Amino acid sequence: MSDSQTPAFCTTRRVEFRDTDAAGIVHFSAFFPMMEAAEHEFLRSRGLSVMQAQDEGGHLTWPRVSASCDYHAAARFEDQLQIAVWVDHLGGKSVRYRFEFSCQDRRIATGQLTAVCCQLSDGHLQSVAIPDAVRSKLKGE
Amino acid sequence: MSDSQTPAFCTTRRVEFRDTDAAGIVHFSAFFPMMEAAEHEFLRSRGLSVMQAQDEGGHLTWPRVSASCDYHAAARFEDQLQIAVWVDHLGGKSVRYRFEFSCQDRRIATGQLTAVCCQLSDGHLQSVAIPDAVRSKLKGE
Amino acid sequence: MSDSQTPAFCTTRRVEFRDTDAAGIVHFSAFFPMMEAAEHEFLRSRGLSVMQAQDEGGHLTWPRVSASCDYHAAARFEDQLQIAVWVDHLGGKSVRYRFEFSCQDRRIATGQLTAVCCQLSDGHLQSVAIPDAVRSKLKGE
Amino acid sequence: MSDSQTPAFCTTRRVEFRDTDAAGIVHFSAFFPMMEAAEHEFLRSRGLSVMQAQDEGGHLTWPRVSASCDYHAAARFEDQLQIAVWVDHLGGKSVRYRFEFSCQDRRIATGQLTAVCCQLSDGHLQSVAIPDAVRSKLKGE
Repeated sequence: MSDSQTPAFCTTRRVEFRDTDAAGIVHFSAFFPMMEAAEHEFLRSRGLSVMQAQDEGGHLTWPRVSASCDYHAAARFEDQLQIAVWVDHLGGKSVRYRFEFSCQDRRIATGQLTAVCCQLSDGHLQSVAIPDAVRSKLKGE
Repeated sequence: MSDSQTPAFCTTRRVEFRDTDAAGIVHFSAFFPMMEAAEHEFLRSRGLSVMQAQDEGGHLTWPRVSASCDYHAAARFEDQLQIAVWVDHLGGKSVRYRFEFSCQDRRIATGQLTAVCCQLSDGHLQSVAIPDAVRSKLKGE
Repeated sequence: MSDSQTPAFCTTRRVEFRDTDAAGIVHFSAFFPMMEAAEHEFLRSRGLSVMQAQDEGGHLTWPRVSASCDYHAAARFEDQLQIAVWVDHLGGKSVRYRFEFSCQDRRIATGQLTAVCCQLSDGHLQSVAIPDAVRSKLKGE
Repeated sequence: MSDSQTPAFCTTRRVEFRDTDAAGIVHFSAFFPMMEAAEHEFLRSRGLSVMQAQDEGGHLTWPRVSASCDYHAAARFEDQLQIAVWVDHLGGKSVRYRFEFSCQDRRIATGQLTAVCCQLSDGHLQSVAIPDAVRSKLKGE
């Protein structure tokens, strides 16, 4: 994981007009939904979902406890961003993703999301240990 | 209602940076959440809510069937917008709002939202006649 | 154009989590950025851009004068939407697009955007006749 | 500053429907535009602006280099959030804000934004020392 140079997942995304602001660049807040979309795409690529029905009823889901982003260079409308995703840390109940945004060879931004594995039943959230089957898929085993 | 010149409700709203785009103006799509926020503020001012618990269980809610906006002039970051709300049409099961956005004496945009009165029970939506008590409040009686 | 059944352009788009709301469905306002992204993708497919540098200086751009959407059925997180684009009307200075959103065989929404061809020079916008070269590409000639 | 318990600025904000997601709560990304709006409101309260015209031409502006948020409890539609703002660190060229979101006595989220003082001239950004007059206002002197 954190010792690995190779991303767990890569995707691309073209900057849309709604993600820009009056400074002519991508609004800093727009990187967070982009991280989330990349995370969800990664989960789908591993046969997982951010809202997964459980055999015993209820759903497994991943509320965020922390999000951060460092901005290195501006991105602009119609830029084609490369987004690399790493599983930076896989704890007993939580996962921390790292994201790198680049455009051609320019580093744009680096972000992190930490999510906690929760059982959602009847509108009630309870943190739970990440099931082994899910853990294996997150590890890419 | 539609024959009345006086708005049912007026509010103001300062343009935030996230609502601007790379053309330096408020993004056209940002007027729709602004209409919705004004609608919800209007409902609260009349003792109503867009998601109202019912005595007999479930909620009364107002999904949209139509939304439109005509743009007259650009609005910019930190502009203080005046938003006037009219109940343009009050049908048996639906309500159509009209919104006028202005900035000082400049007309910015005119919009409409049509919403249908629905009973939400166990995740199931069913259109219903607008209850008399709600109708009276919408009329300002 | 308007007499044609065949869309000028088709694309797909997966519903992202940020586009949903607390009613569990795609927020009505989210269809407008989706229309815009489809319009821009259409323009790129025809060798055009929504912000096109002109030989004589300045840019050709397309501010919106009108936007509308009718909602037929709810779309949900991770739904894969088909978006069809028609050039509904091509006037001397303006273009009206029509958009149909569907999910598998379910009609989700129908929208329209009207944009005016403008010359942008030194921050000043002036409506102009759509240049013949642009008109031909919009027509798909 | 960081040794002070008293916020530099406090404001309130009602959660809008567009800020919620299909989990029924405020989307984690929505806290970032809320921080920014509070920052801008704070600057206005001190007679500053996030985009300030300079006597010698150009503008003083504050691009972000870092943003983060920790989430403690969920906020919901129509919750009235209290937002407290601290000037956590005031460097030679940069400022770091801290934000605390609460709802009644419940802690909702804690965030940080770091912005760099830049001179914007002819579309070119150059980091500069925070002018004394601006520094005094940020300190509340």
